[in-house]
Amino acid sequence: MRVIRAPQQMGQAVDRLRARGQRIGVVPTMGALHEGHCSLIRRAARECDAVIVTIFVNPLQFGPREDFRRYPRPLATDLRLAASAGATLAFVPPAASVFPPGFQTRIAVGRLGAIWEGKVRPGHFTGVATVVSILFNLTRPHRAYFGQKDFQQAVIIKKMAKDLDMAIDVVICPTIRENDGLAMSSRNFYLNKDERKAATIINKCLTQTTELIKSGIIDIESIRRFMKEKLSEEPLITEIQYASMYSPQTLDELERAGKEALLAIALKIGKTRLIDNMIVNP
Amino acid sequence: MRVIRAPQQMGQAVDRLRARGQRIGVVPTMGALHEGHCSLIRRAARECDAVIVTIFVNPLQFGPREDFRRYPRPLATDLRLAASAGATLAFVPPAASVFPPGFQTRIAVGRLGAIWEGKVRPGHFTGVATVVSILFNLTRPHRAYFGQKDFQQAVIIKKMAKDLDMAIDVVICPTIRENDGLAMSSRNFYLNKDERKAATIINKCLTQTTELIKSGIIDIESIRRFMKEKLSEEPLITEIQYASMYSPQTLDELERAGKEALLAIALKIGKTRLIDNMIVNP
Repeated sequence: MRVIRAPQQMGQAVDRLRARGQRIGVVPTMGALHEGHCSLIRRAARECDAVIVTIFVNPLQFGPREDFRRYPRPLATDLRLAASAGATLAFVPPAASVFPPGFQTRIAVGRLGAIWEGKVRPGHFTGVATVVSILFNLTRPHRAYFGQKDFQQAVIIKKMAKDLDMAIDVVICPTIRENDGLAMSSRNFYLNKDERKAATIINKCLTQTTELIKSGIIDIESIRRFMKEKLSEEPLITEIQYASMYSPQTLDELERAGKEALLAIALKIGKTRLIDNMIVNP
Repeated sequence: MRVIRAPQQMGQAVDRLRARGQRIGVVPTMGALHEGHCSLIRRAARECDAVIVTIFVNPLQFGPREDFRRYPRPLATDLRLAASAGATLAFVPPAASVFPPGFQTRIAVGRLGAIWEGKVRPGHFTGVATVVSILFNLTRPHRAYFGQKDFQQAVIIKKMAKDLDMAIDVVICPTIRENDGLAMSSRNFYLNKDERKAATIINKCLTQTTELIKSGIIDIESIRRFMKEKLSEEPLITEIQYASMYSPQTLDELERAGKEALLAIALKIGKTRLIDNMIVNP
């Protein structure tokens, strides 16, 4: 696996790949790779000729009181994991080359970016869309792979790619979970032993709510109440930001579970913010 | 010259050109082509292997009380002019294929888009940047050509292409003028005979202010006053939106003319809004 740091070199490498007719897949990451990322890389390696993993902790998508500084950056491990999952190129640009002084362009994603996660993290998805569009321009992939765990992010990137005619196929891949059901996330590293154990409540809540819906309880009031009660069993939860049922298309709250519903949760355990979701087909 | 309407077909045509190693130049226009546009097309034809002229009256860049509906759309003439200037492809997408229902992504250009023209036409440059980035994604040019007459637009597109790493060389070409000095513009078509004559005051004002600066009068107060007095000679001017001296880099007003200064004017003659500018090297 080749490691590229300079954006210009990345562009040249992609030119050569495209000239040889290679299909390019990209997996954009902020590093701190786990099995979730690796599953995206393996899928890209099956479907494409060249797989570029980008590793960039994007300052634009962190709020002023969020964890940009302490976000884990285990680069050597990341490169080893990416290579063994099948990446052929790792792109690790320095922050100053992505956002040089005077940078001022932003991609705004409208309503999809303002609701839901966007309400709790204002500006977050503008930051995500802006950096992803830069990474897309530098790597010019045919396909880009995102995990379902960050569902709203994946929907927004798909919408941006379509709206701006980027000719990139955005593929949303299943969430990968630990043995006890906790969705894999780089932020799980922040949890101490008790918090880690407490975090399993999220998957339990999603699974049991899914069963509730399948049993015929499909109105939003009952579902919201059930989720809240379930989560309140765990005393280490310090804040529930949202826990409800949404349309997977519009991300609006659903009055009643239809053909397809999305259950989504965002909460804090101690100081660590965790999110997860599950799609239900009643 | 081939005429393409469907975005998908445009993408395929560009794939074939790129696969053959052709250098692609694009001239984005709203149609109503005049000698200014033709000079851009001729320059692109000299510098590139394939020249794509896009013709699209972009609804996003018009304000609610602006001239979107009555903007001239002489398509047959436009195609003839583009072909004879050396275009090899004309891309004329239907509005619904560029902005389908539910379109919601926007490219915001920060401070550069909020000042100057942006103050008088809020949202204008967001609309320009958004459509140009779509046209860039569909035509994937090596170079893109813009006229100096729309100086702020050209600076903003250049900045967007750089910020988002689009790998497109944005070329700013000289303003083309009528024999009496009026800058060519599709909006000149709106002027009646008296207004057309009155409009020459703009170029006269820019030329005489240039001479004033070269004679050593370089402070903003004197220059602003001189421009205002000169323009007030013309009774058919119904509104002066701005007339002053700016930095060609930051577009901020300049206290004193330095190595390089930009004189710029926006005004209305009757109901028709006209802009023009001139770069001075004292």
